[in-house]
Amino acid sequence: MNETVPLDPGALTPEQARALFRAGLRVPTAGWCTGRTQANLIAVPRDQAYDLLLFAQRNPKPCPLLEVTEPGAVSAPIFPGDLRTDLPGYIVYEHGEPVAEVTDATEYWRGDLVSFLIGCSFTFETALRDAGVPIRHVEQGVNVPMYRTNRTCRRAGEFGGPLVVSMRPVPAAQIADAVRVTARYPSVHGAPVHVGDPLELGIADLGSPDYGDPVDVRVDEIPVFWACGVTPQAAVAASRPKFAIGHAPGHMAITDARDTRYLVP
Amino acid sequence: MNETVPLDPGALTPEQARALFRAGLRVPTAGWCTGRTQANLIAVPRDQAYDLLLFAQRNPKPCPLLEVTEPGAVSAPIFPGDLRTDLPGYIVYEHGEPVAEVTDATEYWRGDLVSFLIGCSFTFETALRDAGVPIRHVEQGVNVPMYRTNRTCRRAGEFGGPLVVSMRPVPAAQIADAVRVTARYPSVHGAPVHVGDPLELGIADLGSPDYGDPVDVRVDEIPVFWACGVTPQAAVAASRPKFAIGHAPGHMAITDARDTRYLVP
Repeated sequence: MNETVPLDPGALTPEQARALFRAGLRVPTAGWCTGRTQANLIAVPRDQAYDLLLFAQRNPKPCPLLEVTEPGAVSAPIFPGDLRTDLPGYIVYEHGEPVAEVTDATEYWRGDLVSFLIGCSFTFETALRDAGVPIRHVEQGVNVPMYRTNRTCRRAGEFGGPLVVSMRPVPAAQIADAVRVTARYPSVHGAPVHVGDPLELGIADLGSPDYGDPVDVRVDEIPVFWACGVTPQAAVAASRPKFAIGHAPGHMAITDARDTRYLVP
Repeated sequence: MNETVPLDPGALTPEQARALFRAGLRVPTAGWCTGRTQANLIAVPRDQAYDLLLFAQRNPKPCPLLEVTEPGAVSAPIFPGDLRTDLPGYIVYEHGEPVAEVTDATEYWRGDLVSFLIGCSFTFETALRDAGVPIRHVEQGVNVPMYRTNRTCRRAGEFGGPLVVSMRPVPAAQIADAVRVTARYPSVHGAPVHVGDPLELGIADLGSPDYGDPVDVRVDEIPVFWACGVTPQAAVAASRPKFAIGHAPGHMAITDARDTRYLVP
């Protein structure tokens, strides 16, 4: 892989970003392609797609659906690239176990896969930043920290599991702004699900995230938790369906859709 | 049927209303149970449910899903009554043709039916009325007028068809209020899809609605059109699936959920 991270990934078009990922670049996508919607991917065989679609309907906070493809389709109206290659990373699951982590999922792709594109909280980070709220993982150049919680999703058929959350530390004086700004983007997880003590979500140690990297929480800051589109992958791990392909957490599908498309009044 | 319309249906609890409908009362439900969420019903056999669920996902404006039941279930968390009997009216479809209009669907119900509860615009009429916007069909004591339009829904598997809309005449000076108020309720159709000339939606004569009753449009008023949860029934008529049961348009499932549950900031 000869591709390197560009100097200003925020200025790239989605098409340029997808070309870099197609060429093999593996990097978290927070801060990339300012103003564009980012999406989680979970793809399952058609015979598991009803249960997963129902799981998303019953758990709209972690699983806001942006698009569901026809079986075998590798692109979508909001994602004119190739879903098999144009994300920076993939995890392939068999019976709930990760069996491969790849930057090109072509050899694992199946003709009966239905792809679910689920809104990602990276999408509202532009609006947060515009409101003056710090985005610590972008400042530190690492992946956002994500945690499995003690909250259980509503089951649908074979899919059940814990709610997964992403965490951003926010100065106490800016909590209200962070809530107000993100609440206007329900399709990319909307308002936080929890503000404050991680233990109430069953998170014992913020320094050991289940996915992504730890970030610094400063003395005047409070951890704020948003529902996360990795939740379906936690459901895959818990429910052990035969086959699934997900994005590598934090390594998202960058769509052509502008973030304002998902802004509510 | 010995039940008569109560003097103040807005003051009834959902449980009281459902008991009246279960006893056989057939009446449109606009204005009933102030502050409670009303829902459209469409029930299809399990083997058609994936296509219908995908149709709803792809057409969220007419088909905002409040709940999807397990196959054979006749109640839901927000609707603790009996879906077979507790709506004021039902239409039974075979191959897209209405074969029965009944107030009790028990004899047609099947053990493999998946019920979809879809938000209804009657839900935001309380907020409209509180904002001083007239609700003409309630004033005139008739059913809301609904129309099939020339706008085509996104197809999903076997389901396709036209967008159906409901219409409320609004004084020109109050259009902005009507938009602003209803936009805050996306789960019950949200902001209007069209304000003004019915011909642009392919509606030739407001006086001849496809469902419900015509209402007076006064000289200072503009017709305002909202996406309508009868849309899946128009898809059933257009796509001719083997079997379906819908509510009689305007004769809704009255749920226990408060309308504020679906209010966005």
